[in-house]
Amino acid sequence: MRDMDERGITASVIERLQATPDPRLRRIMTSLVRHLHDFVRDVELTEAEWATAIDFLTRTGQACTGTRQEFILLSDTLGVSILVDALAHRAGSGVTESTVLGPFYVEGAPERANGADISAGLVGEPLFVEASIAGRDGAALAGATVDVWHSDDEGFYDVQRPDRPGPALRARFHSDAAGWVRFWTIQPRSYPVPVDGPAGEMLRATGRHAFRPAHVHFRLAAPGHATLVTHIFVAGDAYLDSDAVFAVKHSLIRDFTEQPPGTAPDGRVLGRPWRRLEAAFVLAEAALGA
Amino acid sequence: MRDMDERGITASVIERLQATPDPRLRRIMTSLVRHLHDFVRDVELTEAEWATAIDFLTRTGQACTGTRQEFILLSDTLGVSILVDALAHRAGSGVTESTVLGPFYVEGAPERANGADISAGLVGEPLFVEASIAGRDGAALAGATVDVWHSDDEGFYDVQRPDRPGPALRARFHSDAAGWVRFWTIQPRSYPVPVDGPAGEMLRATGRHAFRPAHVHFRLAAPGHATLVTHIFVAGDAYLDSDAVFAVKHSLIRDFTEQPPGTAPDGRVLGRPWRRLEAAFVLAEAALGA
Repeated sequence: MRDMDERGITASVIERLQATPDPRLRRIMTSLVRHLHDFVRDVELTEAEWATAIDFLTRTGQACTGTRQEFILLSDTLGVSILVDALAHRAGSGVTESTVLGPFYVEGAPERANGADISAGLVGEPLFVEASIAGRDGAALAGATVDVWHSDDEGFYDVQRPDRPGPALRARFHSDAAGWVRFWTIQPRSYPVPVDGPAGEMLRATGRHAFRPAHVHFRLAAPGHATLVTHIFVAGDAYLDSDAVFAVKHSLIRDFTEQPPGTAPDGRVLGRPWRRLEAAFVLAEAALGA
Repeated sequence: MRDMDERGITASVIERLQATPDPRLRRIMTSLVRHLHDFVRDVELTEAEWATAIDFLTRTGQACTGTRQEFILLSDTLGVSILVDALAHRAGSGVTESTVLGPFYVEGAPERANGADISAGLVGEPLFVEASIAGRDGAALAGATVDVWHSDDEGFYDVQRPDRPGPALRARFHSDAAGWVRFWTIQPRSYPVPVDGPAGEMLRATGRHAFRPAHVHFRLAAPGHATLVTHIFVAGDAYLDSDAVFAVKHSLIRDFTEQPPGTAPDGRVLGRPWRRLEAAFVLAEAALGA
């Protein structure tokens, strides 16, 4: 194993990986090295370009914090996240489609009671969300854990607002005995993904816009069922056909219907127009052994 | 651009990249997305494996400091660095072969006069290095900038010793009128690359050893010539055939000859055995326009 030329090096590295005890890791690493080397050979990557890539990846890692995940954003904007999602959720007939998690999910969101208002006083159009959760057999799923998070009226998540002390437009609910979660929030807006880091540099350098169509994130978990990570998109949004992270699915678009001032289904009286979203989620059974 | 399936997503991302103003970047990004997606499809990367990869890459970036470059170490241990090197230095007939830079090069090493001792008092076998620098036409290159750096008697670089206040076994020289650089140091030892970070996790998980054969790094720069980054390896080292970073080239191996106690060529009197290395470096002409 000396005097590696541009072909021999790949075989040598792969040979060295054959002692990997775990067969799945061996397969992944072998394929990774083959494809990574093929890419380097295909473009004849120069030393200066390699150095640029090292610097880019380093800064991507260093841009990550407890509330920002720049590598997920890079994966999202290069279509890797939605590809992994597509591979994981092929046989979804009859269940709600999944889409990307995105970089703004935060562990440990505050638990809120059904019916709560999670807008934390933020300005925006009031939005009443009614979500039902059921299994493929139609049976309501009571006690499902439902995480929701979305952007504010200006397109920012709470974690992008260092001036805000705590969570907003982000909560964990549990479905009631009939399988429903209801809450008040404000209408989400389309927004650019964060462009002040390396992923933003990539978008600018490739002449791409950074916008995502307006949506509400949902993560739904119920015993005996596969956890579902998805969005509900706002019908009519200008970016539905050019989402910066390629995550729109037709089946996930809903009307967030405009309502006149008056009394909402839960008795709240509104002196201004508001919106209403109703969404039915259907979860797959958990895979055997999972 | 909605409802991406596992094939359609790649075409969609590549289509989005076609607005990249710089044609070279467009080519690189197009190839990167194609090969990256092919890898994900080939192994059917799961969501859990994707999350592990995101975490691994994040920690790799965060392990980088001013004196540690974990992404370079990962590139080295996956054979990417030596592949880039091989592509950049194909037509090297008659010139000294290059090899990887490695993660321990530090900008701004101290300038030292020809003949200096750079061992900074570290324990080890004294080593006298005599290096000549010439062009392909055989003409001596005076005033060439020669950076050298290597491991100590226990296999560590100065930057891996937080207890050491400054540079050791690391310096910048300039060749004399006859094209020579001479200096005293200590004999380098084979050593493991740092295994306390993500690259080390990868080596352990793949059952690989982390050792590199003993060597001295050289970086040689002279006006009108291509900068050469290379090592000189110690003949007889146990790891010459299994270098953890795949960087050994036969033409770069030299005897670091054992010498009896006595007087060295520069008049230094040694009361113990010492070693001597003579190496002739030949630099290519700079590419036109470079």
